[in-house]
Amino acid sequence: MPTPFRTTRLVEFQETDAAGIVHFGTFFSWMEQAEHEMLRGLGLSVMMKDDGGKISWPRVHASCDFQSPLHFEDTVEIEIRVDNIGDKNVDYHFHFTCQGRAIAEGKMVAVCCRVERDEPLRSISIPPWIVEKLSVFRC
Amino acid sequence: MPTPFRTTRLVEFQETDAAGIVHFGTFFSWMEQAEHEMLRGLGLSVMMKDDGGKISWPRVHASCDFQSPLHFEDTVEIEIRVDNIGDKNVDYHFHFTCQGRAIAEGKMVAVCCRVERDEPLRSISIPPWIVEKLSVFRC
Amino acid sequence: MPTPFRTTRLVEFQETDAAGIVHFGTFFSWMEQAEHEMLRGLGLSVMMKDDGGKISWPRVHASCDFQSPLHFEDTVEIEIRVDNIGDKNVDYHFHFTCQGRAIAEGKMVAVCCRVERDEPLRSISIPPWIVEKLSVFRC
Amino acid sequence: MPTPFRTTRLVEFQETDAAGIVHFGTFFSWMEQAEHEMLRGLGLSVMMKDDGGKISWPRVHASCDFQSPLHFEDTVEIEIRVDNIGDKNVDYHFHFTCQGRAIAEGKMVAVCCRVERDEPLRSISIPPWIVEKLSVFRC
Repeated sequence: MPTPFRTTRLVEFQETDAAGIVHFGTFFSWMEQAEHEMLRGLGLSVMMKDDGGKISWPRVHASCDFQSPLHFEDTVEIEIRVDNIGDKNVDYHFHFTCQGRAIAEGKMVAVCCRVERDEPLRSISIPPWIVEKLSVFRC
Repeated sequence: MPTPFRTTRLVEFQETDAAGIVHFGTFFSWMEQAEHEMLRGLGLSVMMKDDGGKISWPRVHASCDFQSPLHFEDTVEIEIRVDNIGDKNVDYHFHFTCQGRAIAEGKMVAVCCRVERDEPLRSISIPPWIVEKLSVFRC
Repeated sequence: MPTPFRTTRLVEFQETDAAGIVHFGTFFSWMEQAEHEMLRGLGLSVMMKDDGGKISWPRVHASCDFQSPLHFEDTVEIEIRVDNIGDKNVDYHFHFTCQGRAIAEGKMVAVCCRVERDEPLRSISIPPWIVEKLSVFRC
Repeated sequence: MPTPFRTTRLVEFQETDAAGIVHFGTFFSWMEQAEHEMLRGLGLSVMMKDDGGKISWPRVHASCDFQSPLHFEDTVEIEIRVDNIGDKNVDYHFHFTCQGRAIAEGKMVAVCCRVERDEPLRSISIPPWIVEKLSVFRC
């Protein structure tokens, strides 16, 4: 049965702002870091190669709803689920909590792209072996 | 007739990433910077005072759809419209272009809050004189 | 016999720039993160309290010499030594390596300050119990 | 007679931290932004081309001494002088003030490098026409 991928982050001082809490932009950094950590755990990377050349995963959408603030040295738990795997896109859902308290909910959509020298990125169908790996966290 | 607020940003080197383009997180920084610049132009600030004490505008939602990449030293034009002014919230819409090319569309929702020492933020009805000022960009 | 404090960081995508390598500003973030991690390991914090109130450690100097570039998903090893403990200041030395390769050398000077509400920071002599803890990494 | 290059920055909210002041790392971002703005004003860029190919200017040293804090929405004045032009390196000096108050002093050393595809950066003698342009701010 698929389960979410889980990781944690400790709030660094530079991630806070003059309101004394974590700056909202930090959540988007954490989403990307958590996505990349999940990919590495599957033997993938956001910048990878297969027989056809380089593959990258630019994001076409990112959003976050903020429910409760975080402070310096809080530990935030991040849970990623793969909501949907389309022909060319993967939709991620992020659930942020801190000691059981709901902190934020995020979404990100990444598109599978072929990277060729001096060419713009070109979206491609996600190779089946990658779909299979990502399905571990589809739930 | 209301018109959007307009500003520009030049892409700084630190805002790019190893894919050679502007990192998606940068758009959220620009949205906030543009919102604050718009508020200053109205004689307001994201950290301001009235007779009742301090007022701040934490965000409860931010999202962005990315359409086309930006590179180092590109100039991005940012257009802000106030989509809606609720009892306690303001909904902003951001339109990013570069020499006529569509770059991104963003949204942000900020909530009017009273800031009291050692107390959690408390949302309040937006004072009428602030509603009036923000209405300049409602379109 | 004193030994340096050691920690590691994995290079995140956002920490790279369009030159394809880690942006130089990232090293200053890592220095501060490593310092704070070292303090936590000693039961201290960069924002802490004692009987006299709040203590903080603003930096008055930071510098870094860059020897060799780092790329996305490299693991960088960070070694901190306490070079000197003055009456009010602590001088840190940072040594960055990646699989034995010299990456960078940094320095940071932090000053012990009393934080009082609505007052500017005021530097104080470092309390002896803190000097004792920091001495573990003096080498 | 040579004069320094001058520019300003307004403190953005994201550049502050939970101590209520500008985070020290922000000064390194400003130094690089000011250097790049100065280069553009001379018709140069940190990523440029001549007949021999691409030229870039990685930094081998950066340092800053912090004298007085800055707050949200302060305007900081930045003055750059070219301290020295060596065979391959340019040494910059940065002087930060806010309404006459001394804020910080920074230094940065950039090295002129040839960028070739899939090759490590290779330092080169600074072309004479670039030396001539940079000399405008040598003082």
